[in-house]
Amino acid sequence: MAKIGIVMGSDSDWPVIEPGVRLLSDFEVESEVIVASAHRTPDVVREFATSAKERGFAVLIAVAGAAAHLPGVVASFTTLPVIGVPVSGSALKGIDALLSIVQMPSGIPVATMAIDGGKNAALYALSILALNNETLAGRLLKFRDAQAEEVRKKDRALREKIKETVKGAV
Amino acid sequence: MAKIGIVMGSDSDWPVIEPGVRLLSDFEVESEVIVASAHRTPDVVREFATSAKERGFAVLIAVAGAAAHLPGVVASFTTLPVIGVPVSGSALKGIDALLSIVQMPSGIPVATMAIDGGKNAALYALSILALNNETLAGRLLKFRDAQAEEVRKKDRALREKIKETVKGAV
Amino acid sequence: MAKIGIVMGSDSDWPVIEPGVRLLSDFEVESEVIVASAHRTPDVVREFATSAKERGFAVLIAVAGAAAHLPGVVASFTTLPVIGVPVSGSALKGIDALLSIVQMPSGIPVATMAIDGGKNAALYALSILALNNETLAGRLLKFRDAQAEEVRKKDRALREKIKETVKGAV
Amino acid sequence: MAKIGIVMGSDSDWPVIEPGVRLLSDFEVESEVIVASAHRTPDVVREFATSAKERGFAVLIAVAGAAAHLPGVVASFTTLPVIGVPVSGSALKGIDALLSIVQMPSGIPVATMAIDGGKNAALYALSILALNNETLAGRLLKFRDAQAEEVRKKDRALREKIKETVKGAV
Amino acid sequence: MAKIGIVMGSDSDWPVIEPGVRLLSDFEVESEVIVASAHRTPDVVREFATSAKERGFAVLIAVAGAAAHLPGVVASFTTLPVIGVPVSGSALKGIDALLSIVQMPSGIPVATMAIDGGKNAALYALSILALNNETLAGRLLKFRDAQAEEVRKKDRALREKIKETVKGAV
Amino acid sequence: MAKIGIVMGSDSDWPVIEPGVRLLSDFEVESEVIVASAHRTPDVVREFATSAKERGFAVLIAVAGAAAHLPGVVASFTTLPVIGVPVSGSALKGIDALLSIVQMPSGIPVATMAIDGGKNAALYALSILALNNETLAGRLLKFRDAQAEEVRKKDRALREKIKETVKGAV
Amino acid sequence: MAKIGIVMGSDSDWPVIEPGVRLLSDFEVESEVIVASAHRTPDVVREFATSAKERGFAVLIAVAGAAAHLPGVVASFTTLPVIGVPVSGSALKGIDALLSIVQMPSGIPVATMAIDGGKNAALYALSILALNNETLAGRLLKFRDAQAEEVRKKDRALREKIKETVKGAV
Amino acid sequence: MAKIGIVMGSDSDWPVIEPGVRLLSDFEVESEVIVASAHRTPDVVREFATSAKERGFAVLIAVAGAAAHLPGVVASFTTLPVIGVPVSGSALKGIDALLSIVQMPSGIPVATMAIDGGKNAALYALSILALNNETLAGRLLKFRDAQAEEVRKKDRALREKIKETVKGAV
Repeated sequence: MAKIGIVMGSDSDWPVIEPGVRLLSDFEVESEVIVASAHRTPDVVREFATSAKERGFAVLIAVAGAAAHLPGVVASFTTLPVIGVPVSGSALKGIDALLSIVQMPSGIPVATMAIDGGKNAALYALSILALNNETLAGRLLKFRDAQAEEVRKKDRALREKIKETVKGAV
Repeated sequence: MAKIGIVMGSDSDWPVIEPGVRLLSDFEVESEVIVASAHRTPDVVREFATSAKERGFAVLIAVAGAAAHLPGVVASFTTLPVIGVPVSGSALKGIDALLSIVQMPSGIPVATMAIDGGKNAALYALSILALNNETLAGRLLKFRDAQAEEVRKKDRALREKIKETVKGAV
Repeated sequence: MAKIGIVMGSDSDWPVIEPGVRLLSDFEVESEVIVASAHRTPDVVREFATSAKERGFAVLIAVAGAAAHLPGVVASFTTLPVIGVPVSGSALKGIDALLSIVQMPSGIPVATMAIDGGKNAALYALSILALNNETLAGRLLKFRDAQAEEVRKKDRALREKIKETVKGAV
Repeated sequence: MAKIGIVMGSDSDWPVIEPGVRLLSDFEVESEVIVASAHRTPDVVREFATSAKERGFAVLIAVAGAAAHLPGVVASFTTLPVIGVPVSGSALKGIDALLSIVQMPSGIPVATMAIDGGKNAALYALSILALNNETLAGRLLKFRDAQAEEVRKKDRALREKIKETVKGAV
Repeated sequence: MAKIGIVMGSDSDWPVIEPGVRLLSDFEVESEVIVASAHRTPDVVREFATSAKERGFAVLIAVAGAAAHLPGVVASFTTLPVIGVPVSGSALKGIDALLSIVQMPSGIPVATMAIDGGKNAALYALSILALNNETLAGRLLKFRDAQAEEVRKKDRALREKIKETVKGAV
Repeated sequence: MAKIGIVMGSDSDWPVIEPGVRLLSDFEVESEVIVASAHRTPDVVREFATSAKERGFAVLIAVAGAAAHLPGVVASFTTLPVIGVPVSGSALKGIDALLSIVQMPSGIPVATMAIDGGKNAALYALSILALNNETLAGRLLKFRDAQAEEVRKKDRALREKIKETVKGAV
Repeated sequence: MAKIGIVMGSDSDWPVIEPGVRLLSDFEVESEVIVASAHRTPDVVREFATSAKERGFAVLIAVAGAAAHLPGVVASFTTLPVIGVPVSGSALKGIDALLSIVQMPSGIPVATMAIDGGKNAALYALSILALNNETLAGRLLKFRDAQAEEVRKKDRALREKIKETVKGAV
Repeated sequence: MAKIGIVMGSDSDWPVIEPGVRLLSDFEVESEVIVASAHRTPDVVREFATSAKERGFAVLIAVAGAAAHLPGVVASFTTLPVIGVPVSGSALKGIDALLSIVQMPSGIPVATMAIDGGKNAALYALSILALNNETLAGRLLKFRDAQAEEVRKKDRALREKIKETVKGAV
């Protein structure tokens, strides 16, 4: 089965993408995580992106903050689908990274996730893999069901709590 | 008497709307609070909104952060007045939720409150109910008076403090 | 039947609220439209808001741009529901008016509509009146149906056009 | 071969996505384009999204402006990959639509493109289909090459022009 | 000598204006500080502004956060110079208050200071009083000199520190 | 009587301040208008600001766009009250000029007007001069009255128009 | 003498940098202008940046809009000083390009100019070359003088015009 | 060898520029650091900038927050290259300082770094000095290599950690 390649601009981005990496692991999808900088190690990034397809990667995820060029640079070297995750670490709380990633010019798209949306990047990659993998498609549906059940559980818990403490709550 | 229906996108939004729920309780207006997600449990939201009128709700309040679709989705399924409360929890401090709620297209309005303005959502719902309920209308006036008195009290306290500590204050 | 009171900060705001006024007329709901400025004629605004209830108004709509204080000032003088419409006329394209209207302090809510959302303000007022007026409630449902049919009609028209001009469109 | 489903919140969004639809046509990939509103015809959107997989769609593209809920609502009803395109039509020039689309909560991702980035949405959809279609993968590479050649051609043309008109240009 | 009138929308704004009040005291200029809300106690604000001139005030300072209407409302009731101070307390860090205060319509100006710029509001009021009071004008010059000397002192201290700890600093 | 000194960063700013200059003329207050750039002719600005008081100026108005340093630079060389007017000419529509002018550090205040608020700058200067000039104070009151009457006139005109064209308008 | 290398992401950026190219020509400094895209022709950009020093370039200027990665990508491949110019062409009017260029991570600086500031990029490059070229240094001083004289000329012209048309202008 | 002149608007800016000063020291380049305010000690700034060239400075760095006029004011008094560093200390987190520094008018450029980008300012100054100093040019290359090696080291460390803790990571 195809693997997911993940590149972070800095090892400080790990907490953003860790939930995504663990989700891929839960789905039994292999991933490779590297730290490489579009600006400090551009040739590592280029090599990673250029060779990704033949090395068996289907989707690439790039995680970066501030002038977050990493996802766009990765996309410039591959026709694989690239997912970009803006990180909120800078003084501007990630609006800089978001605009740097999402406002790609015509011809080289990057699929942008929410600021710090590392888990959703993994989910999106899984939705792509699931197009040709019924096992994954089934797991995605179960994930959705479990997620919905989690909301219903919180709903029940909160209603209980409110009924006990607020007069007139029904 | 008509009830107020309140839906939060996440149980973590409870502190934002709790002051509003307690205010409704003080005004002896019944409310029902549920946790339901426009994205994770869309059919719960749809059912809640679609059935709200016949279940006796007069006004619906929806509380959500980030890409806060909940108020708009609720409004799409009912002609009852819907009040939206943007939550500041995201990296962008609620400006994302504010724009997602307030910039509704022509035809489906949502009454938007300030970021984290849960108490005002309840007050606004009360002002609607009071249109046909003189008891509530009277309580609203009293609430306003008490609120004004609170400001005057703080005014007196601060003046005292300033006169004691700042030379030349009159 | 209760009337809707509408106040604009400037007569240049008329194009923003005109579709709303015409909608009220279509729904056979009376409205009164005045031009009054929170800053240039504050006592007119105060008189309008203070007397609104006894003059038979149920909901007030205030339309203003830039440092749009009008909706908040109206709300400070009445417990009727107030709807605020930010106008995009300034250099900042209405983000100033939006924040000036929506970020009301706890205790005095204003229901904020989208920038230039004059028609939605009227619709929202109608949804409030409809709570105690089944005729209006029925018209609101019909309005929604007609609106949905309009979308479906545009859908059919666009599909036709696309099928004729784009190869591979289904 | 799998088809691409495209939904616009309004027929006025057609110029934004038309270049994408034509690109899919050039790649000989079938697409279906519909106009449906998350707020005005929510059940059409729900039906479209819920049935998309069994109707043979692999990727869905949703195009919307202002409080652009359409992509998120589509994503809430399917596990297919959803691509969102924010439209710049509102007073806020699309920053509202961008934040409404990209800031999705954990669990329901939407792949966000640049404001008005309709062509890139199609390209991204093609990059997903190409994962299991070598013909498409080949066409994507050719598209990239042609695109690069276009840049080089413009480079040559501009250099000529500059050399003729600017002294000291080399 | 003329007095300075200061009105805060909430007693929580006191830390913002306290340095200004103390500065006035140092300059031996009388000031009156009140807490009054444009929305909760509008008639107190109106009375304060309307009577300010005859009560001997020359300049009014209004301090407010969020939808900061207070300075504009004060200005609507007096032709005395009004200074507005936006407060950063809200989720939006004062950009809402800044725009609400500074974007006043033509005809009713408010002199806007920096976010949380309470001390500068007092200094500005002093610069106005100093136009007709040579004693104050002299104190303002001394204040400027002392302020400049403070900068030079910090300059000397930092240079010392740097020379001791950084090799190559001159 | 004291004069008003006005400095623009560029002659293209003239349309912004022209209404203010004409207002001063209507009030029979002398003004001097110069073009001087904080960056291109800093010594002219410095000379203008340094000598302003002894040359008989009471208030200085500085008009500038983009990185609008002019008002702050003027203020650094005088203790006279300085009024800053941000201009909307740049790509960022004046939000850059607004922040550059209003966010002055503690110790050197600039009274900031709305973006393109040249007329209000003049009005504010007049309100300062009027503190010691009863003739001007009287004219300011008349100006306010005329301005209010203008609003009332527009109110009457619009009401007429609406009654003729909208059924149900009262 | 060292040359200036200029790279634009698109030939549509030419009007932004043309004044800069002509200024270099006026200063008799050679420049080479190329069109190359960080995303569409990344290897052209890399080759341009990597070989720039040995090809005799001293300073590189990169001009780009939207997710403007070009300046940062150029800087990642050279230790020559790189100047970035954000272009305002996108829906967001260049704030996206500005943040994408200026918010570079520690270790790889890009000297950012104003939005559409192509002429200043050339001037800045000249100020660098002038450090070791007294002829250029002299021309820069003359350029500054001419620029100041231009301001003074406009000052005189505007004063004339005002005196003729505004009563009370001095 | 030429020296670098560094001016901070406040001694509280020292932590922003300290890494830059230490880097210059590591590169054996002399620097002088002063505290001087564009507004509080404008003549110190003017003297510093005016005399910089003859005192042996090649590049000037100016560090400031809020209405950060310092870099622009320095640039107005010298033709040496000036580097501006916006500081994030204000309520607006440095977006005010960024716009105040970067949006300089045509004719007086300032090379703007990222918010709080003090180290990059020093690196950029070094890249300018290195144009005529092969020793520095060599050190810059080594710095880049060391920086890249640092990224690779973090890459190896993170991969190890991930392999140990995440199943399915390759």
